[in-house]
Amino acid sequence: MAKFMDVHDGFFGVTQEQLDAAHDADLKIEGEEGVHFEKAWLDRESGKVFCLSTAPSKEAVMRIHERAGHPISEVYEVTAEV
Amino acid sequence: MAKFMDVHDGFFGVTQEQLDAAHDADLKIEGEEGVHFEKAWLDRESGKVFCLSTAPSKEAVMRIHERAGHPISEVYEVTAEV
Repeated sequence: MAKFMDVHDGFFGVTQEQLDAAHDADLKIEGEEGVHFEKAWLDRESGKVFCLSTAPSKEAVMRIHERAGHPISEVYEVTAEV
Repeated sequence: MAKFMDVHDGFFGVTQEQLDAAHDADLKIEGEEGVHFEKAWLDRESGKVFCLSTAPSKEAVMRIHERAGHPISEVYEVTAEV
């Protein structure tokens, strides 16, 4: 398993409740691909969301987010952290 | 105090030790601006680093990173998280 940071665009004006609902949609299906979304940080002004996950691959992260209704364009493997 | 996520580019091939040193350079001076860098995640393939901080403003985050030798172009205020 590896760790990933992915980036969403277009979440302008999203509320806490909407962010919770989007995260719950991921959690509901993530197990099917061995993914776990740990944390998500939203900036509703810029519409950015950053998600931290553990997963077997970038493609697994992308598939879960796409199936949950919020596809991503950027996903990065975390190779070191502090 | 608010929470911020900022993004660095150009950290290609950076080691764990180099990431630690960059983070330590921030920690050494962050108090002068009331900033605290909590976490950083590196993808050495893409050269991206994502830093999570608490700070009084975006500008304070930018000033500390610049003075520590690794200026950023992108910084986002976290308005919700899950």
